[in-house]
Amino acid sequence: MIKSRAAVAFEAGKPLEIVEVDVAPPQRGEVLVRIVASGVCHTDAFTLSGEDPEGIFPAILGHEGGGIVEAVGEGVTELAVGDHVIPLYTAECRVCKFCTSGKTNLCQSVRATQGKGVMPDGTSRFSYQGKPIYHYMGCSTFSEYTVLPEVSLAKIPKDAPLEKVCLLGCGVTTGIGAVLNTAKVEEGATVAIFGLGGIGLAAIIGATMAKASRIIAIDINPDKFAIAKELGATEFVNPKEHDKPIQEVIVEMTDGGVDYSFECVGNVQLMRAALECCHKGWGESTIIGVAGAGQEISTRPFQLVTGRVWRGSAFGGVKGRTELPGYVEKAQTGEIPLDTFITHTMGLEDINKAFELMHEGKSIRSVVHF
Amino acid sequence: MIKSRAAVAFEAGKPLEIVEVDVAPPQRGEVLVRIVASGVCHTDAFTLSGEDPEGIFPAILGHEGGGIVEAVGEGVTELAVGDHVIPLYTAECRVCKFCTSGKTNLCQSVRATQGKGVMPDGTSRFSYQGKPIYHYMGCSTFSEYTVLPEVSLAKIPKDAPLEKVCLLGCGVTTGIGAVLNTAKVEEGATVAIFGLGGIGLAAIIGATMAKASRIIAIDINPDKFAIAKELGATEFVNPKEHDKPIQEVIVEMTDGGVDYSFECVGNVQLMRAALECCHKGWGESTIIGVAGAGQEISTRPFQLVTGRVWRGSAFGGVKGRTELPGYVEKAQTGEIPLDTFITHTMGLEDINKAFELMHEGKSIRSVVHF
Repeated sequence: MIKSRAAVAFEAGKPLEIVEVDVAPPQRGEVLVRIVASGVCHTDAFTLSGEDPEGIFPAILGHEGGGIVEAVGEGVTELAVGDHVIPLYTAECRVCKFCTSGKTNLCQSVRATQGKGVMPDGTSRFSYQGKPIYHYMGCSTFSEYTVLPEVSLAKIPKDAPLEKVCLLGCGVTTGIGAVLNTAKVEEGATVAIFGLGGIGLAAIIGATMAKASRIIAIDINPDKFAIAKELGATEFVNPKEHDKPIQEVIVEMTDGGVDYSFECVGNVQLMRAALECCHKGWGESTIIGVAGAGQEISTRPFQLVTGRVWRGSAFGGVKGRTELPGYVEKAQTGEIPLDTFITHTMGLEDINKAFELMHEGKSIRSVVHF
Repeated sequence: MIKSRAAVAFEAGKPLEIVEVDVAPPQRGEVLVRIVASGVCHTDAFTLSGEDPEGIFPAILGHEGGGIVEAVGEGVTELAVGDHVIPLYTAECRVCKFCTSGKTNLCQSVRATQGKGVMPDGTSRFSYQGKPIYHYMGCSTFSEYTVLPEVSLAKIPKDAPLEKVCLLGCGVTTGIGAVLNTAKVEEGATVAIFGLGGIGLAAIIGATMAKASRIIAIDINPDKFAIAKELGATEFVNPKEHDKPIQEVIVEMTDGGVDYSFECVGNVQLMRAALECCHKGWGESTIIGVAGAGQEISTRPFQLVTGRVWRGSAFGGVKGRTELPGYVEKAQTGEIPLDTFITHTMGLEDINKAFELMHEGKSIRSVVHF
């Protein structure tokens, strides 16, 4: 057992509490990681709010981290003490039906236990005052030390700054990957991006990398437009400035609709708008945002029969262990401008401030430095 | 003006009436066709029922025909008197944004006027007792003589039997094309087909042509299973024999879901089931059926975020003028067994019998011989 400073979510709807938890040593196939930095993502806030149907408490949240391997359990072969790693909430075991399908990044090797907040053996490595604390998304990066299965860690070069590339553990990769891997936006395409949080802005980067001809950025907070422009967005739409449904506005702007749209909020009405602003015959809409429990999307089937396609993306369709090193490289060359995302940094003791900034729409990403 | 025997839908919900209508000569870019045979499709019945939001009366229904060019209007360059043709409710002009996109078969050249029951110049060629009768789906094949734009006619070889290949004008091509063109089912894939009417059975042929490994045929009428088996279906499911939702039954049968599913009925609940029986990570569902006015599909967005894809298909994604001759050839070699579909034939005077047989589930396709 080692001691670890951690921000614990003891119950839904309450601020995190900074306490010292106990972390058990890594078991077979597991790795102990010292977290150096962690981004704070909307999904953490979503779970903390109590709306997440999978949310269980008490838990250590956080899933956008960067760290260094501190110890390895028996049978760990591809990681060694001192390696730099990014925790993966979407594992990559390379042997399951999903990994070997060539069609998806949704490895299921640790999915069942991860969803229950425990390690693959069914138990937690975290405890506080003798009682177990649950893991979160298989990562729990809001703890100085955390334990993950080896298959849930991407090894990255040691010269990459962990306090920046930690953002590739979720939002930035999710947005870029949805554009490049899931939708496969091609050069010259028109793109609409709904919601300019971290994921939406990353989707703009993806669309820029794909050489889209028009990148329409949509948000009800016009303060986001400057940064969207900096990242490559070419047009800006504030739904509050229009009387008609936003899909109609975009269809008119684009002579029939966009080639690709992305929902980066988690709002089911916006998911419908994103589909319906796509061009008849070929427009494809990708859902990235996570909706609240029990919420449903709907549309007239005619929208699909006339050629629109509705799909979704998780972690940008990216296979973490295989593809994240490439994303890290693009961040180091500046093609993925991570600095633009990091609007605030803070110590672990101030982590609740990061949630406040996010709720107020003042931050893109806050990064907690341990 | 020439006289033509026709089955006219004078109003919704009433049987067709066999009368002699007047047909005006083809105008610029138009072609007069003598219909030799026409299939009777569920879409005709759907419009006749009054549920079709685009339905207008009085009209001459029918859109699954085979005929011979009787006269051509000014400016017609690619068709001549005596050519054998299949009318197309999805035109192919080869110059519009849709035709040249390389991404869709939904040519829009005549769409606006076609939807209003008139020719591109805004008027009808049909009249009865001096009053205009509307065209239907740009085809109106329940008339001995009909007029279509040149872009709405596929020229086919003269040795193909029109009383059989007329079925390629809608249902058979729609089902096969949805599998091969829209979903692009690959060899070894697992497929579920919901609804064993003409389109569902054609989708089975498509899946057989694609060399799918498992073809699961689903219908509440078990009488359809024998013919489905004959066409290549490997398993049969009657939802009435199961207590749980049909998507759960299929997910269990297939260890996680099918690779591709097709909804061939037009029932929005079944469209949801078809999506949700797809495999996590990659399963794709294609809607072929046409739902009633105002009806909507819905699902949890999680279904898409975890990798399922929802799409639709119209006329099987087939570009009529370019691709139908290839379908005709496959019918002549027997690869597309049209005879299996033709359960009943009748003269025009008995066309209402075709609707009755369809409603009673007794026919696959009735073909009217003129």
